[in-house]
Amino acid sequence: MKIKYTLLKSDCNTKARLGKIETNYGCFTTPMFMPVGTRATVKSLTVEQVKDCGSGIILANTYHLWLRPGEEIIEKAGGLHKFMNWNGPILTDSGGFQVFSLAKNKEKDICEEGVYFKSHIDGKKLFLTPEKSIQIQNKLDSDIAMSFDECPPASATHDYLKKSVERTLRWAKRGLKVHNNENQALFGIVQGGAYEDLRKYSAVETVKLNFDGYSIGGVANDGESKEDMYKAIEYSVPYLPSDKVRYLMGVGEPIDIIEGVIRGVDIFDCVLPTRIARHGQAFTRHGKINLHNAKYKEDFSPLELDCDCYCCQNYSKAYIRHLVNTDEMLGGTLLSIHNIRFLIKLTEDLREAIKNDNILEYREKFIREYNKTDK
Amino acid sequence: MKIKYTLLKSDCNTKARLGKIETNYGCFTTPMFMPVGTRATVKSLTVEQVKDCGSGIILANTYHLWLRPGEEIIEKAGGLHKFMNWNGPILTDSGGFQVFSLAKNKEKDICEEGVYFKSHIDGKKLFLTPEKSIQIQNKLDSDIAMSFDECPPASATHDYLKKSVERTLRWAKRGLKVHNNENQALFGIVQGGAYEDLRKYSAVETVKLNFDGYSIGGVANDGESKEDMYKAIEYSVPYLPSDKVRYLMGVGEPIDIIEGVIRGVDIFDCVLPTRIARHGQAFTRHGKINLHNAKYKEDFSPLELDCDCYCCQNYSKAYIRHLVNTDEMLGGTLLSIHNIRFLIKLTEDLREAIKNDNILEYREKFIREYNKTDK
Repeated sequence: MKIKYTLLKSDCNTKARLGKIETNYGCFTTPMFMPVGTRATVKSLTVEQVKDCGSGIILANTYHLWLRPGEEIIEKAGGLHKFMNWNGPILTDSGGFQVFSLAKNKEKDICEEGVYFKSHIDGKKLFLTPEKSIQIQNKLDSDIAMSFDECPPASATHDYLKKSVERTLRWAKRGLKVHNNENQALFGIVQGGAYEDLRKYSAVETVKLNFDGYSIGGVANDGESKEDMYKAIEYSVPYLPSDKVRYLMGVGEPIDIIEGVIRGVDIFDCVLPTRIARHGQAFTRHGKINLHNAKYKEDFSPLELDCDCYCCQNYSKAYIRHLVNTDEMLGGTLLSIHNIRFLIKLTEDLREAIKNDNILEYREKFIREYNKTDK
Repeated sequence: MKIKYTLLKSDCNTKARLGKIETNYGCFTTPMFMPVGTRATVKSLTVEQVKDCGSGIILANTYHLWLRPGEEIIEKAGGLHKFMNWNGPILTDSGGFQVFSLAKNKEKDICEEGVYFKSHIDGKKLFLTPEKSIQIQNKLDSDIAMSFDECPPASATHDYLKKSVERTLRWAKRGLKVHNNENQALFGIVQGGAYEDLRKYSAVETVKLNFDGYSIGGVANDGESKEDMYKAIEYSVPYLPSDKVRYLMGVGEPIDIIEGVIRGVDIFDCVLPTRIARHGQAFTRHGKINLHNAKYKEDFSPLELDCDCYCCQNYSKAYIRHLVNTDEMLGGTLLSIHNIRFLIKLTEDLREAIKNDNILEYREKFIREYNKTDK
């Protein structure tokens, strides 16, 4: 089967919704944060460690896996689940975001057929098309594949974005035509920057194509304001069907997850929790903290007293500080576990708040505490 | 209590012995390989992962912990076990080996009082003495501390070594005098290069000081031949008491562990399994293999078919190759688990062989298979 989304409850005061997604690799409730396993590994963690954080689904990157080890090898291994030993649901992106963001302007050439660009590994010239992206994802055998879209920069004009939205729609149709994996759902992507007319147009036209779910793209670009991100969601969601999943791509700041959920989003992904972990930082209810800070030298308390993650249950800030200070890999591992658990616990709390119709109070309390950031 | 060693069985044909070591943090059987947790972390592994490899005891480095985070912080944390969340036995070295090997010749000055040298981190001038080493280890609160010895290079002359052995004996006495931790055993170190007279002298005189156990030092120096290593063991062991543990420092090549056990050694330590793991290499019964090799691209079998480690039970060579090829940290983690398990399983097999009095057959078979190294 493809995935099945069930709307369990809508919040009384906002667009937030509690849902359930069933896949061939298990079921999870939404809102849900998806840890990113770029190259078929959530950086520095075993699959059990990822699972123990409460992860219902993970994301893997088509672009990176296409280049290394190649989709053919993963297909021969029996698909991505088997290759990486993750027996839960997997979503793969289309590769579009990486092609547009990793390649510098001069090194890519966008045409109707697809995108020519240089590999970030060896500079080899490559060509990715909507069909190719879907074919790779079919072979990776993820549970959810994404349509190949154009990802314009935050600075794009209304004119450029209008043409880009049209192209993304044509690319979406081409992808749908070649999609050929009966166990894989395919999601369409709404673009249009922070323009109400374009978001509406993109949403309405994409929904006409009848995808298995919809994502809101173009919101995690460098230089985009939070205001524009929230607008992009607000302008898109009203036109998305209530019986399909809604996915906000690339978003992982705690407050943005809350704002996204309140505006009707179900799933999120971001490299943030693992990336900041490798730089010695941890999410806490009182903001991000930096474990390199000398003030933690003799702090034998956990990152957060009431956190149920493996890191907080077993290690002190003083120990983690020692690890990050000496570049020991375990530091990044422990902080990754905590940070992923933090975001997933946040979505658990949001689910509870939706059940209790008090998500607005939850947001207010969360923001008040979070902004007391420990300097 | 301090540790208690019980000799369970001696091999009929060799000096190999089966033993048991009891500590305040649990009991383990010997021969045993000890994974190295240089900076209070076995690189890239959680303590549960280390435990799951069958590790009965781990080693931590006094020199590194003295510099960062400092023994005072570890003492305040409640000792090394609590600081690093390892509730099994821990052995700490004396710091001597690092002082003698990390500092270049011009950057150290050995005198009767101790050794002046430059920190490998910031070049700061430091001074380590036999008393200081023991005092640091007392605070670290390991189960087994090591006496501070001089570690001469493999090229040292008989003349130099003779004086060095004398000094090591004087240093041993000074360390014993200040040792002050009733839960910590203290081991003496036998030096003397590959000279029979010096090893005998060093062993006899060190044993007179009545340590809780004895180690054979100066065998893991750069440029030392295997022949000299085996000689050093053979010349030392006859003078060590049978009711105390014998520890061969810094040795971790599978064949050297076997040869050491046959010559009467009980415990071993080495960074080799985790170091080669970070370089993409794995121990197998057919020699070391390099996972960067393109031949593993589509090899979906585990590193070793009959290995019971977490890595071999769950991941293929093709996946590990992908990880090491893309510099993903999980590659080093999985290979470290396998390599540590490999050496500990080897010591398990050796224990079994001692029980069955067939260790010589075991060695023959092991060497025959191991030398079929997969080029």
